[in-house]
Amino acid sequence: MEFTAEKIAAFLGGRVEGDLMTVVNTVSKIEEGFAGSLSFLANPKYTSYIYTTQASVVLVNEDFVAEHPISATLVRVPDAYKAIAQLLEFYNQSIAKTGISDKAAIHEQALFGENCFIAEFVSLSQGVSIGANVSLYPGVVLGDNVTVGNNTIIYANVTVYKDCKIGADCIIHAGTVIGSDGFGFAPQENSAFKKIPQAGNVVIEDNVEIGANCTIDRATIGSTTIRSGVKLDNLIQIAHNVEIGENTVIAAQTGISGSTKIGKNNMVGGQVGFAGHLKIADNVKIGAQSGIHKDIDQKGAVMQGTPVTGMRDFYRSSLMFAKLPDIQKQINELQKKLNTLLTQNPNPND
Amino acid sequence: MEFTAEKIAAFLGGRVEGDLMTVVNTVSKIEEGFAGSLSFLANPKYTSYIYTTQASVVLVNEDFVAEHPISATLVRVPDAYKAIAQLLEFYNQSIAKTGISDKAAIHEQALFGENCFIAEFVSLSQGVSIGANVSLYPGVVLGDNVTVGNNTIIYANVTVYKDCKIGADCIIHAGTVIGSDGFGFAPQENSAFKKIPQAGNVVIEDNVEIGANCTIDRATIGSTTIRSGVKLDNLIQIAHNVEIGENTVIAAQTGISGSTKIGKNNMVGGQVGFAGHLKIADNVKIGAQSGIHKDIDQKGAVMQGTPVTGMRDFYRSSLMFAKLPDIQKQINELQKKLNTLLTQNPNPND
Amino acid sequence: MEFTAEKIAAFLGGRVEGDLMTVVNTVSKIEEGFAGSLSFLANPKYTSYIYTTQASVVLVNEDFVAEHPISATLVRVPDAYKAIAQLLEFYNQSIAKTGISDKAAIHEQALFGENCFIAEFVSLSQGVSIGANVSLYPGVVLGDNVTVGNNTIIYANVTVYKDCKIGADCIIHAGTVIGSDGFGFAPQENSAFKKIPQAGNVVIEDNVEIGANCTIDRATIGSTTIRSGVKLDNLIQIAHNVEIGENTVIAAQTGISGSTKIGKNNMVGGQVGFAGHLKIADNVKIGAQSGIHKDIDQKGAVMQGTPVTGMRDFYRSSLMFAKLPDIQKQINELQKKLNTLLTQNPNPND
Repeated sequence: MEFTAEKIAAFLGGRVEGDLMTVVNTVSKIEEGFAGSLSFLANPKYTSYIYTTQASVVLVNEDFVAEHPISATLVRVPDAYKAIAQLLEFYNQSIAKTGISDKAAIHEQALFGENCFIAEFVSLSQGVSIGANVSLYPGVVLGDNVTVGNNTIIYANVTVYKDCKIGADCIIHAGTVIGSDGFGFAPQENSAFKKIPQAGNVVIEDNVEIGANCTIDRATIGSTTIRSGVKLDNLIQIAHNVEIGENTVIAAQTGISGSTKIGKNNMVGGQVGFAGHLKIADNVKIGAQSGIHKDIDQKGAVMQGTPVTGMRDFYRSSLMFAKLPDIQKQINELQKKLNTLLTQNPNPND
Repeated sequence: MEFTAEKIAAFLGGRVEGDLMTVVNTVSKIEEGFAGSLSFLANPKYTSYIYTTQASVVLVNEDFVAEHPISATLVRVPDAYKAIAQLLEFYNQSIAKTGISDKAAIHEQALFGENCFIAEFVSLSQGVSIGANVSLYPGVVLGDNVTVGNNTIIYANVTVYKDCKIGADCIIHAGTVIGSDGFGFAPQENSAFKKIPQAGNVVIEDNVEIGANCTIDRATIGSTTIRSGVKLDNLIQIAHNVEIGENTVIAAQTGISGSTKIGKNNMVGGQVGFAGHLKIADNVKIGAQSGIHKDIDQKGAVMQGTPVTGMRDFYRSSLMFAKLPDIQKQINELQKKLNTLLTQNPNPND
Repeated sequence: MEFTAEKIAAFLGGRVEGDLMTVVNTVSKIEEGFAGSLSFLANPKYTSYIYTTQASVVLVNEDFVAEHPISATLVRVPDAYKAIAQLLEFYNQSIAKTGISDKAAIHEQALFGENCFIAEFVSLSQGVSIGANVSLYPGVVLGDNVTVGNNTIIYANVTVYKDCKIGADCIIHAGTVIGSDGFGFAPQENSAFKKIPQAGNVVIEDNVEIGANCTIDRATIGSTTIRSGVKLDNLIQIAHNVEIGENTVIAAQTGISGSTKIGKNNMVGGQVGFAGHLKIADNVKIGAQSGIHKDIDQKGAVMQGTPVTGMRDFYRSSLMFAKLPDIQKQINELQKKLNTLLTQNPNPND
């Protein structure tokens, strides 16, 4: 990455104030700006930093009025926050890798579309079918008959087991495992367990992003399904036959047990656990570290705790939890006073 | 997979009702059945679906009596549930891969038995010794002197550090790490920590299944031991010198701290945490998200919570937790009434 | 590993009692000692085992006085515990691998120093720069411009995304992912989410050890920073823009949300969750499974629970939690008695 202020302004449809030839080769926060970096001022809370930042170029909103001298070259744009995102996206696309490594292992019956990047040590098994503009980083393993839609990026050392389907415009981060066997065993008479074959697959629809080192198990029969637009953070566990509705967002280290169905547009915090065979409504918000043991039927519910309750109730109970020793003291005092009274007023009927 | 109803019936010792030549190439749930799929009816709750399912072939129990017309071809067998499992197992074996890839890196002093599958990009280090019928998927890394018993399957991108031993008939899912260093450091005077060498190994006995992206640390000295028949779900952490007894089953994202010994036939829920140096009896059941801080001596105990208690007590206390704000109100009212009484009945001795 | 008692004594500056030629080829705990193994007696609690151990050689402190006959060969040293650690370290260094595999994929613009071990199926991308004495195990993937300091060990199947920096004398265990995208999305009007580009990196300073299958996300802008001397256990999640202070130690399965700053010399238990944008003071201790929702300002605080409180308060409240059903009973009884009294003493003002 190496751009002049002039080139940045041209790309963004902005206007330079200062030296057109100022060069930047990376991005910084305005409060941590350093020479050679591009920064931006979008949130007015950070305005004071523009007078002291060492960043070489700063994107500002068109209507920004400086109250002190500024050493950085400015690029004025309609929306500085959107502009930086737009610029970074453009940059990422400009450095996207292409080409098929001769150190990949591609089965003769595996197919892939135009303009793909298939790195060294990628393994594409029999029947694999990959769209156009797909990126597979080193160590990606796609089992028999796996399909991947256009423009999807799969980072290094991801494993996808046979028969799983990944949609278009997805991003799957390194180390994630898709399609491992569901955790199903039948107890035997001798206390041992016999494996129940896991004959289904995983279906991931379009525009899904999955973090690093997640695990998504294949269905026993049928599919474990991640609907379009779902975003999963790192180290998340999705058990067999789970379904996650469109545009639901789940934070890191959450686990969802078998056959549970999560609705659309949910927001789930980190380290949450869901029991199996539950049904969660749409637009539900669940706080971090909650334990969900029963269905949530109410659309838009905001829940927290173990067992989960409304978030307000959870906070009130939590405050009380910290005061439990006081409560015992209060009760003991009441008891004492009452006993005194009872001694003075013996109840003949008691 | 592509079978006729006739072939299925012959394999299962069943009897066809309908077109012997009906072909299926996958499996479906009866309520989601579609053309070309094989389904089964074992649980009477699902009986109504057999009259509407689109599955091409359905396995049913011998004594099933149809009350309406059925479009699917039926195969009658003694036990439809067992039959489908038997068929899937047979199918999985029939498609098992074999052969040694010339893109694997096999040390000249590594040994392996007959009929193994060693995929591309597998790394077998010096002194590795592998039994017969073992499958190693792409990216599996076995360090110096690792041994693997007969019939074991190790899926893609699993890492086994040097000197660890894996038994026969095991399944280890993708991304799991076995034999990483235990987490042991000695505090130094300057607040830094010095690594304590981790010189032991991991021993995994026979018939063990380990999920995806688990971590099992090697012992400081001696062995971290996973006994025969243990089943571990995904993303489980097993620290150094832990021992897990025979046929114990542990759900996803649970963590067990150093030197803890778990008994036989335990069932442990997901996201449970065990402190270190504990001893847990046999046949214990522990609910999800529990925190275990002390030994559980009672064989067959059923426990839940943090700190863990009996499951019944946990649920009663949890119900009360939700009512804590009410309790404070009740106490306040009592206090008020009592004060009124006390005002009326001043206690001369108080 | 194969040493005589004589060689061990010479290396440690110790003195042999028994057969100088006794050979050992592994290490055992004294209570589990077996023929051919080296053991040690440091903790007096284990003294009784020295008279029965089957270990062939035992390291003992210089001042150890035997009260019964001992069959093992003894090596007397100033400090038996330090001696065994010293010996194991020496042994580990003596078997360190070197050499550059011709099955690695090393970009022509990647650089590495003297005496490195680069295993098969390692991928070094454009601009990678590696110091001397670095070990990269099979399947390690280093993205564009990644730097690694001297003497660092990176175990198998670790992925480091582009532009991340790893210091000297670090150990990174298998399957860990460094530099995956932070979890940042902007909500759109149609309930979908738009990815916020993650343009920063991860900086890991010197003497850091990171366990297996951890995930450390790159910063949105700037760096996610792991300071010198930090020790992370397995399966830990570090979100974007987090900073972890020097010599802080964190147990397995803990998760830290975005932009949180953890102080120096902290000790954090397993399965702890930190919300985002927090600031935690230095020298803080946090118990396992805690949930941290607000800043901890007090240096040296010892905290536990969800929401976190002082550890003593947490234990008192936890004890009370188990007694909650009793508390309700006590209140009910008080209520009943009080009502009886009130019936006898009707309050005219009530």
